[in-house]
Amino acid sequence: ERLGIEHPILLAPMGFVAGGELAAAVSAAGGLGLIGGGYGDADWLRREFAAAGNQPVGAGFITWSLARRPELLELCLERSPKAMIFTFGDATAFVARCQEAGVTTLWQVQRLEQARQAIAAGTDILVAQGQEAGGHGLQRGLTALLPAIRDLAGEDQLVVAAGGIGDGRGLAASLMLGADGVMMGTRFFAAVEALGPASVKARLVAASGDETLRTSVFDLARGFDWPEGFTGRILHNEFSRRWHGNVEGLQARLEDERKRYEAAGEDDVTTRVVHAGEVVDLITEIVPAARIVSETVAEATRLLRSAAARYLVS
Amino acid sequence: ERLGIEHPILLAPMGFVAGGELAAAVSAAGGLGLIGGGYGDADWLRREFAAAGNQPVGAGFITWSLARRPELLELCLERSPKAMIFTFGDATAFVARCQEAGVTTLWQVQRLEQARQAIAAGTDILVAQGQEAGGHGLQRGLTALLPAIRDLAGEDQLVVAAGGIGDGRGLAASLMLGADGVMMGTRFFAAVEALGPASVKARLVAASGDETLRTSVFDLARGFDWPEGFTGRILHNEFSRRWHGNVEGLQARLEDERKRYEAAGEDDVTTRVVHAGEVVDLITEIVPAARIVSETVAEATRLLRSAAARYLVS
Repeated sequence: ERLGIEHPILLAPMGFVAGGELAAAVSAAGGLGLIGGGYGDADWLRREFAAAGNQPVGAGFITWSLARRPELLELCLERSPKAMIFTFGDATAFVARCQEAGVTTLWQVQRLEQARQAIAAGTDILVAQGQEAGGHGLQRGLTALLPAIRDLAGEDQLVVAAGGIGDGRGLAASLMLGADGVMMGTRFFAAVEALGPASVKARLVAASGDETLRTSVFDLARGFDWPEGFTGRILHNEFSRRWHGNVEGLQARLEDERKRYEAAGEDDVTTRVVHAGEVVDLITEIVPAARIVSETVAEATRLLRSAAARYLVS
Repeated sequence: ERLGIEHPILLAPMGFVAGGELAAAVSAAGGLGLIGGGYGDADWLRREFAAAGNQPVGAGFITWSLARRPELLELCLERSPKAMIFTFGDATAFVARCQEAGVTTLWQVQRLEQARQAIAAGTDILVAQGQEAGGHGLQRGLTALLPAIRDLAGEDQLVVAAGGIGDGRGLAASLMLGADGVMMGTRFFAAVEALGPASVKARLVAASGDETLRTSVFDLARGFDWPEGFTGRILHNEFSRRWHGNVEGLQARLEDERKRYEAAGEDDVTTRVVHAGEVVDLITEIVPAARIVSETVAEATRLLRSAAARYLVS
């Protein structure tokens, strides 16, 4: 691995979920932990980098949000991150800044046209994110997107798969589709070390992927002005059942609904957003991140070794 | 293979595309060809079963449409099909009728809740279809849906993957995710033997998956009353650019727009619908179906054999 990690497993930089403790746990287990800078909060970042201790970790941002507060990238670079990841927007300038600082860059893309931009910027690692993913993204599915990005990028480019991957089956499949490794979000959200209320993690364990959908109603309620086309995959709850498909209605009552949303407790999963990928079907318990890493690698290894003989004639 | 076929590759029963010649070619190459009965047309079915000659082929229908013309199932059963596949709706009664006739059944599902229904009906083979697929479907992506359906169905149930699969990488990945085989649609649409104008096949070769999207505007224009939630993945063209996202506008001008749609020639890809999956990125030429089957199997075999040593530590 050109990243100098033992296992091809990366922690998705989930905002306010992937903190220093979780990132450090993934790195300690042989993967690469990435702190979720999200929309950007200097105090939170300082605290979470500190919480990662001496483990080599990286961090990531929502690109269009970082563009409004580029000083947060400097805050990270001062902490010698193992890598920086940018997603949702044109990260060309940030990639250049990281190259200057000698820091490995990842750029998460959801379409081929974005992959072309990321390659042109000289990004070290492309992350191909399918619409199965929890949180924000676009509409393309991983199964067809990933091999197309591999064909576009060529064999020498590092490509990581993201979206819908929760166990060794997903890792093995991603390698078959042309990836060099995987990034997992929702599966690590359900790790012991992830930030977030117990009620939210319990929902991840109980929920089915059938209950997730992509919507913009929570972004509207929270006042985040995402670029056109981006939606967040969430667990359908009372709030989204009321407003999904009726954005005009929500806009008409926005002030009241924002107040109601903010008044709800962080652990109120009926009103507050729970970002989750379709992979929740595969999540049956909250376990330490190290176990997720080791079991994923062990399962993928077993599957790949037994597959050729088992399924296909020569 | 419990189907008695050499290669784990099925032809998706694309309406008015997967005719007898294509189905026979896939079966002759060691896969299983399925004639696309679509909404149902007795004359077309008789002709295409005849065109398949002595090759063992099956056929498939849109379930909710077949329910309005159940006699079409009898027309197929009289021709001793190798298998029957049902998709989009409750096929319980049709599965029972096939069991009576001793014909193998497939039921294509897009959500876990549908998979439960298909299993309860005693369906021989579940087909898990991801939203990457061309034509009609729902919203779940294959990467997370397929392993969840395998877990639900247990190891003894045959499960086939569909949606976003266009080459040996997709076959190998599907096997890793828990499938026993794959069904390919768009890739076979771009076969020499597929029905459809040359201009449409040329679009498949030229197009990117970035240009596909799920919409209902063509169903509205064609007068097909699909159940709530189902959309068709199509290649974006002038017609869909005008009306996608403005269903109310289309409904207000429906009579005129229907006339305009019907007046367009079958080869007019700027107005007429071209159903296509995200996998079009991987399609670079029109080739015989036999070559698609053999190259897919050869590539998957090679990938699976070399993977364990190449990617993963023990």
